[in-house]
Amino acid sequence: MHSWIDGQPAAAVNLQNRGLAYGDGLFETIAVRGGRPSLLDGHLARLALGCQRLAIDADLALVREELLRYASQLADGIAKLIITRGDSQRGYAPVAGAMPRRILQGSPLPSYPVEHAEHGVRLFLCQTRLGEQPLLAGLKHLNRLEQVLARAEWQDSEHAEGLMRDGQGRLIEGVFSNLFLVREGKLFTADLSRCGVAGVMRAALLQQAVLQGIPVQVCDLPFEALEQADEVFVCNSVYGVWPVRGIAALNWSPGPLTRKLQAVARTLLET
Amino acid sequence: MHSWIDGQPAAAVNLQNRGLAYGDGLFETIAVRGGRPSLLDGHLARLALGCQRLAIDADLALVREELLRYASQLADGIAKLIITRGDSQRGYAPVAGAMPRRILQGSPLPSYPVEHAEHGVRLFLCQTRLGEQPLLAGLKHLNRLEQVLARAEWQDSEHAEGLMRDGQGRLIEGVFSNLFLVREGKLFTADLSRCGVAGVMRAALLQQAVLQGIPVQVCDLPFEALEQADEVFVCNSVYGVWPVRGIAALNWSPGPLTRKLQAVARTLLET
Repeated sequence: MHSWIDGQPAAAVNLQNRGLAYGDGLFETIAVRGGRPSLLDGHLARLALGCQRLAIDADLALVREELLRYASQLADGIAKLIITRGDSQRGYAPVAGAMPRRILQGSPLPSYPVEHAEHGVRLFLCQTRLGEQPLLAGLKHLNRLEQVLARAEWQDSEHAEGLMRDGQGRLIEGVFSNLFLVREGKLFTADLSRCGVAGVMRAALLQQAVLQGIPVQVCDLPFEALEQADEVFVCNSVYGVWPVRGIAALNWSPGPLTRKLQAVARTLLET
Repeated sequence: MHSWIDGQPAAAVNLQNRGLAYGDGLFETIAVRGGRPSLLDGHLARLALGCQRLAIDADLALVREELLRYASQLADGIAKLIITRGDSQRGYAPVAGAMPRRILQGSPLPSYPVEHAEHGVRLFLCQTRLGEQPLLAGLKHLNRLEQVLARAEWQDSEHAEGLMRDGQGRLIEGVFSNLFLVREGKLFTADLSRCGVAGVMRAALLQQAVLQGIPVQVCDLPFEALEQADEVFVCNSVYGVWPVRGIAALNWSPGPLTRKLQAVARTLLET
């Protein structure tokens, strides 16, 4: 399906766009099924937070309206929404009155092997570490060279995702997923106040876990937390939940809490 | 002057470009006078290093040739050269065979007040800190949200540049400059192996200082180094050298080594 810029079909963006010049913007990757964007409120909430923290004055009501319109035409696929600060001349200083640009791109739903969800995936242990930047942590902004470098570390199909750590070796996330550990019935995921992307599916699963009475802890996770984990899984807002069956020399089987939250994720993506 | 993509006039870049999607590329900002790019070898050397570290397979001979051609048409101005990894579909994994894109944009030479060079500038002490990422440190890549945030911290014209520190409070650089201190006749500038952009003018001045027998030290600089400095200046490959006359409560006068290197920079930019 054709891309849109500011609600109009377009295939190219002005060279003055600050998204290209500085990665000065944000994005959301949204699963669309039957013409409806999944986890819509979660995506828009994260985008709103990002716009606030980067002081990008986007019209979020218009973004929502366009996204709904785009999704209804896309029917089934992935809608990628990019918001940039707009165009400007050379120089980092944002130009007063710059108009944020709204970009929508459609692509087919990815066809991951069904085994990923059924039997689990192996994670590649990336050497690329995430730098600490509290001002950007949690946001899905357009400065993604760390993910590009990490994703380039493996080419084999044995690893469906990579595990990223921070400079101190703490577990943070996957390259395009968030990470959860289960230990003694309790759910753990990394604190993302210094680095990492706070995924929309991560937020939804945390909320659902709390509602279902599953104990949850968001905290720093040293590498040793993996050795002590009973279950490990990754999630995002496109594929839902994949059990993790191996990282380096460590191995797990898909466990009961993983299966429970996998079902939750499936429901979230289908409604 | 018209922009070029891959040697052809163009005003817009494909929405699939990874420069827009992830900031997956590099840039150089090059002063052009009389149709000739200043510090050409320095810019191309940094670009080559960046391409190597990001594994972007750009044709650097072609980049050089196009830049020279573009500069001769621009005559006097700033040539901004962007190299991106090229186009790809959704996903961080670089596509095998992606063709790096060469983008050239021209703008007029900026008209900074002559007092900046003559009497010096005040630096705004930015609260935005530079995150540590050794894999990207030194490169002029397209992930520049930290600079955007820092530059948005001040709007007054009293401050011509901002001073950026790392998470530990060490002095690193200006938002669009590098920083030098002078103490007892010795020249100091920050080690940029964890963060910062290794400026082309910085490299040229370091080289010229060594050639002229000026002692030079590239090292970690705690904030206290400013209090002990006899002279402070900033530099880049567009304006050359600006003496710094104040940062927060600290004040300096343009000193002899600053004046000497200012003259060196002027010569470098004019030849």
